[in-house]
Amino acid sequence: MKLVSFTTMNAQERYGILTADGVIELGPRLGEHVPTLVDALTHFSIEELNQYASLPCDYRLNDIHYLPVIPRPGKILCIGMNYAQKRLEFASTEEAPTLFIRFADSQAGHEQPVLKPTCTEQFDYEGELAFVIGKAGRHIAPEDAYAHVAGYSVYMDGSARDWQHAWYTAGKNWPQTGGFGPALVTRDEIPDPHALTLQTRVNGEALQNDHTRNMIHTIPQIVAYISTFTPLSPGDVILTGSPGNVGKSLVPPRYLHAGDVVEVEIEGLGTLRNTVVDAADVE
Amino acid sequence: MKLVSFTTMNAQERYGILTADGVIELGPRLGEHVPTLVDALTHFSIEELNQYASLPCDYRLNDIHYLPVIPRPGKILCIGMNYAQKRLEFASTEEAPTLFIRFADSQAGHEQPVLKPTCTEQFDYEGELAFVIGKAGRHIAPEDAYAHVAGYSVYMDGSARDWQHAWYTAGKNWPQTGGFGPALVTRDEIPDPHALTLQTRVNGEALQNDHTRNMIHTIPQIVAYISTFTPLSPGDVILTGSPGNVGKSLVPPRYLHAGDVVEVEIEGLGTLRNTVVDAADVE
Repeated sequence: MKLVSFTTMNAQERYGILTADGVIELGPRLGEHVPTLVDALTHFSIEELNQYASLPCDYRLNDIHYLPVIPRPGKILCIGMNYAQKRLEFASTEEAPTLFIRFADSQAGHEQPVLKPTCTEQFDYEGELAFVIGKAGRHIAPEDAYAHVAGYSVYMDGSARDWQHAWYTAGKNWPQTGGFGPALVTRDEIPDPHALTLQTRVNGEALQNDHTRNMIHTIPQIVAYISTFTPLSPGDVILTGSPGNVGKSLVPPRYLHAGDVVEVEIEGLGTLRNTVVDAADVE
Repeated sequence: MKLVSFTTMNAQERYGILTADGVIELGPRLGEHVPTLVDALTHFSIEELNQYASLPCDYRLNDIHYLPVIPRPGKILCIGMNYAQKRLEFASTEEAPTLFIRFADSQAGHEQPVLKPTCTEQFDYEGELAFVIGKAGRHIAPEDAYAHVAGYSVYMDGSARDWQHAWYTAGKNWPQTGGFGPALVTRDEIPDPHALTLQTRVNGEALQNDHTRNMIHTIPQIVAYISTFTPLSPGDVILTGSPGNVGKSLVPPRYLHAGDVVEVEIEGLGTLRNTVVDAADVE
């Protein structure tokens, strides 16, 4: 099952089940206390949500605008330097997972623009596997980790390289730079999230080609590590890091500019597509 | 004027004006759409709030429990390595402000316990000046920065040194490790936030003694830097970094253990006091 957050003409936030034909809206069917996808993940199991999957669609795909899969996560935790080639490119030697945080307002939905900040000439792509927490927990053992995962999605962790400075916060939090979607693919559809190909394309050219088996810290290890120091809640989002061959590492560097189309495709999870727009044009 | 967030017997979150005799509650006087101090900062000016400062107190000091001044900030941004001695102790050479993020659930109110994580033997104190945003903004020029500051408070940025790993996130986000209070002292009472003495005491022993004039990046510079990459909103909290002489840098190191009383006193802002409790005893 694929779950999406979206808006329609009247701009109200909605969510539902994405099918080939359109979207089955869930909110009104689940009740007044379930206004967002995070609320649905909090109060219902995937099996319960799946009961609605055979209903006719309420909206055609042409009539929706995708929001970030989780528009306002309580926590967005991002693992850095989690593929061998990326570590070489950035000369990383840290053994523990490197971790930075994105704010919710740095996100963008599938097929929405991502904004190249006015203050950088080094706006860069990073294609990543993201996972979403479905069940709260703290001190989660690696062997219990997947039981806390609602599902998986695709993230384009857009980065202002010349603003990463120390600890990356400033490089990773510009408004609407992080593409997230199209959908949350529930865990039952992905038997092994470490058996997926990942490709990032810019204007159709494949620039990142890797496989999620090459992650250094696996999802169970990441869940165990993070939940040691902070409680995880439904709707929290964790990015697992980008493979190598980011624009900064190419010779010459291949940074993003207005009009570039960035696609991140992960096997079984679909293709996230965003077009780069100059922030100045919309601010 | 000193503004506080607090609870009483029934555990409902309240806020109001702190006086020598007690607290004048503001929420019910401002209306239904103003349930938190962040809402009050959003919808009212300091001058408007000050009209209530001469009313009789609704609660005696003995009857309130302090919450973190802002219990759920939208953003908590923390400057690291912002005093010369601290930079020497941690061998920091970065010119831009180093920045990490705390989650709201890592905070603790004045006179509430701070929790020593079970997984660290290197729980450390950092006394800091914090400021709170009162007026939203993006791309704020240094000369306009103070107009966006609602006021100042005291922070004890409790840190698990052996978990700081890369980019500090894991060392700074353990539940209830960051003391924040007692109050938001509004900007009109502090003509120059860079003219204040700062002292951190553990069990009465003064371990950090410094002065806010010694910050490397000043508040106007910090506001300008941060607001370049992320929008600031009322209730956002920014920590300005700790002076040197943290426990890790002492010989032998002086880490915190259950029963230790940590006090951070900043001139004009009062004294934040927290007692260390083992996390295992309350989890």
